[in-house]
Amino acid sequence: MNTANGINLTMLFDFYELTMGNGYWENGMKDRITCFDVFFRTIPDGGGFAIAAGLEQIVDYIQNLHFSEEDIAYLRGRKIFNEDFLEWLKDFHFHGDLWAVPEGTPIFPGEPVMTVRAPAIEAQLMETYILLEFNHQSLIATKANRVCRAAEGRTVLEFGSRRAQGITGAVTGARAAFIGGCAGTACAVSDQIYGVPAGGTMAHSWVQMFDSEYEAFENYCRTYPTNAILLVDTFDTLRSGVPNAIRAFNTVLKPLGITKCGIRLDSGDMAYLTKRARKMLDEAGWTECRITVSNSLDERLIRDLIRQGAQIDSFGVGERLITSKSSPVFDGVYKLCAVEKEDGTRIPKIKISENVGKITNPDFKKLYRFYSLETGHAEADYICLREEFVDDTQPLTICDPVARWKRKTMENYRAVELQVPVFQNGELVYRLPSLPEIKAYCAVQIETLWPEVKRFDNPHQYYVDLSEKLMAMKDAMLENAGRGAAKA
Amino acid sequence: MNTANGINLTMLFDFYELTMGNGYWENGMKDRITCFDVFFRTIPDGGGFAIAAGLEQIVDYIQNLHFSEEDIAYLRGRKIFNEDFLEWLKDFHFHGDLWAVPEGTPIFPGEPVMTVRAPAIEAQLMETYILLEFNHQSLIATKANRVCRAAEGRTVLEFGSRRAQGITGAVTGARAAFIGGCAGTACAVSDQIYGVPAGGTMAHSWVQMFDSEYEAFENYCRTYPTNAILLVDTFDTLRSGVPNAIRAFNTVLKPLGITKCGIRLDSGDMAYLTKRARKMLDEAGWTECRITVSNSLDERLIRDLIRQGAQIDSFGVGERLITSKSSPVFDGVYKLCAVEKEDGTRIPKIKISENVGKITNPDFKKLYRFYSLETGHAEADYICLREEFVDDTQPLTICDPVARWKRKTMENYRAVELQVPVFQNGELVYRLPSLPEIKAYCAVQIETLWPEVKRFDNPHQYYVDLSEKLMAMKDAMLENAGRGAAKA
Repeated sequence: MNTANGINLTMLFDFYELTMGNGYWENGMKDRITCFDVFFRTIPDGGGFAIAAGLEQIVDYIQNLHFSEEDIAYLRGRKIFNEDFLEWLKDFHFHGDLWAVPEGTPIFPGEPVMTVRAPAIEAQLMETYILLEFNHQSLIATKANRVCRAAEGRTVLEFGSRRAQGITGAVTGARAAFIGGCAGTACAVSDQIYGVPAGGTMAHSWVQMFDSEYEAFENYCRTYPTNAILLVDTFDTLRSGVPNAIRAFNTVLKPLGITKCGIRLDSGDMAYLTKRARKMLDEAGWTECRITVSNSLDERLIRDLIRQGAQIDSFGVGERLITSKSSPVFDGVYKLCAVEKEDGTRIPKIKISENVGKITNPDFKKLYRFYSLETGHAEADYICLREEFVDDTQPLTICDPVARWKRKTMENYRAVELQVPVFQNGELVYRLPSLPEIKAYCAVQIETLWPEVKRFDNPHQYYVDLSEKLMAMKDAMLENAGRGAAKA
Repeated sequence: MNTANGINLTMLFDFYELTMGNGYWENGMKDRITCFDVFFRTIPDGGGFAIAAGLEQIVDYIQNLHFSEEDIAYLRGRKIFNEDFLEWLKDFHFHGDLWAVPEGTPIFPGEPVMTVRAPAIEAQLMETYILLEFNHQSLIATKANRVCRAAEGRTVLEFGSRRAQGITGAVTGARAAFIGGCAGTACAVSDQIYGVPAGGTMAHSWVQMFDSEYEAFENYCRTYPTNAILLVDTFDTLRSGVPNAIRAFNTVLKPLGITKCGIRLDSGDMAYLTKRARKMLDEAGWTECRITVSNSLDERLIRDLIRQGAQIDSFGVGERLITSKSSPVFDGVYKLCAVEKEDGTRIPKIKISENVGKITNPDFKKLYRFYSLETGHAEADYICLREEFVDDTQPLTICDPVARWKRKTMENYRAVELQVPVFQNGELVYRLPSLPEIKAYCAVQIETLWPEVKRFDNPHQYYVDLSEKLMAMKDAMLENAGRGAAKA
């Protein structure tokens, strides 16, 4: 059976979500309001920031939350769920609130990029899908942005569908790559459903289908005179491919007055070959012929090729982008931060761990970004309790939650709340931006980052600080846990 | 829009497939019969073999090949396709043949694991999806098998949905992991649609929802007395988690006469903590309590933990399995190997490359595996022309295609053709095995491999040899290409 055709995404949960859900039901806790934060811990590739993506698909998922009769029958067959609970699942949908940073926002470890406030069973069930979609698309948007920054304004196209990790690895992967900066994709269905511009001309098989490379090129130019990008490395790039391409351009395009065309190289040394090919094309008068390369490219190879003077107009980037090969995991987590009592009192929750990095920030929170009014640069992010309010007309001293002697006083700054309301009481209250809007927003936001944060290796660590109240609460909870280990 | 709900997989192609398809149409080549091989070049993680997977989803895809009115409208909107071609696409389906190695077969670089023989446009269009599915599932089956071999018979569960690269990364990923040896998954929908056993008990949030860890454990044991696996690391594994678990087992399970239960650890040092926990459980009489661990596990950490005497019954393996983190790309390719003339004559095709590893084996071929009748071990694979036949009652001298002085004479062996017919003239002729059958077949086939091939690092390189006829053909074609570069 093919999972991409008609699975109910509501069933894409880790089984324990529903084991717990049924347990909350049986223990009279189903209506208890819970708050969960989504945050991540590690920036892929050792970079200085990541890019949030995937919210549109998460919204779609939440709007379509439901269990079908078949789903209930499957669950009943597992023989562990209370029949009343199964009956109740028939009317299951989302009643809660969701806040999230908009797609395309640069994000940093430890900060709440999404917050869910909902009845326990609902909030619990959504964990897997929310993380899956956020982790996957943020991973690819982040990687694509590195690759695009390496290309320094040259076109980058996403070419990786065939090596993607599954159907949506390719299809939503292309969407995320577009957000991160790619100009387009090879994946037709990503164009059809998301509007990611898809294109592509020929594979080696086109060349091989004809009796000669020249014949293949000439026929291609006749069929697609205004989009003739010829793949020149099937036999020998410089001795056969480029000369045959020039001959086909001369024969077919020149009489039509067409000057725009292209060649693509998919093997061999890209620096050497493109310099030689550029020279041959220019000498033949095809100065507007663009050179595209594709072959195991990533941000490091692209940067090296450019440094070596490779003559490349466009990069087709495949497996190393669509799988984020050098760093293929985005480690977003979904952690309980508060539970509300029946009287509405909020009880902050913390997860303590023997791995210090896994200790969470308690309670229902809010996330600010501080921009310098002088430079426009983002200076720090600031996490505080939901009730706190930053008055950016006043100076504010912020301090590093680990290295507490590091303090910085914000002055002449603008404080912007990063999370926006997406759902309220189960209703969508957010206008989903279009994909080009997201891409443009992402580019503008990245412009606000200091160059030091954008370095590929060993970048400046951007400040993500806690408010004094939040820090005091966390300290007290850790202290308390240390005293009576069994209580939280 | 959510891609997992109702996209037409026929539209999941690289755009150039249809640019070429339309070109074949316009150049009168649409009925030309072509042969394409699927093969891969590199074994993930430097291992000695990979495992083929994904065929069932490929079959499903081929059976459902079609363009809807909406798809045609989208393509028309691109304004590059011939209207007659678009009209013709309305009746598009598969008329060709497909051969493939069964799912679960150990496979080696360079050998044709699938062969498509079909009219050019059909064969071309299927490239992207066939590769995507084969690459993804083979990657995960191969990784899962490494992890399971490291666990030396202990249970391995796939826990990675939330960090998977997209929806199908999780859902078919769990299927592939099961083929490779995992006992089950956390992913409910993979159970529902594929029958991969899904299970799971509690997350940290369950523990945090109650006023104390003990209360959380006691309530869980009351709700699920026969499946009480308690997560013991929310606050402090040895000072709080394990003592509270023992107390809950004593209070709830003991009076019921239940002796089977479990604890799970998700952080901290797994070797130290599990040895201590085992001792505490045994001393309290809970000798049948199983210990599960989960936290950034992979084959190397599992092997080390076992060597250090960690007391672990079951491993929950997440992101490092579901993304094959240490080696996240499976590099299968789809290459034209022959074209048939109108009179039925087959013209072998080769792709020459400046990267020697990218040169293909020409012509319509067949793949044998030779098993020693003495030991039962697989000794070598053998690629020959489709018309050749291996008579395994006779000795056969095989030779390495690169290191040609390396020769070996097969005697006392059984020759088994590895590719089976899947489609003939567009009709499915293959009985798809059930998932447990595939898993069992995989385990048996891996048993036939020499231990030297199964080493994790620097394994013995299994022999994949070419027949003399095939080698002579390839040599002649390379020689010919060297002389007149523009011809193939």
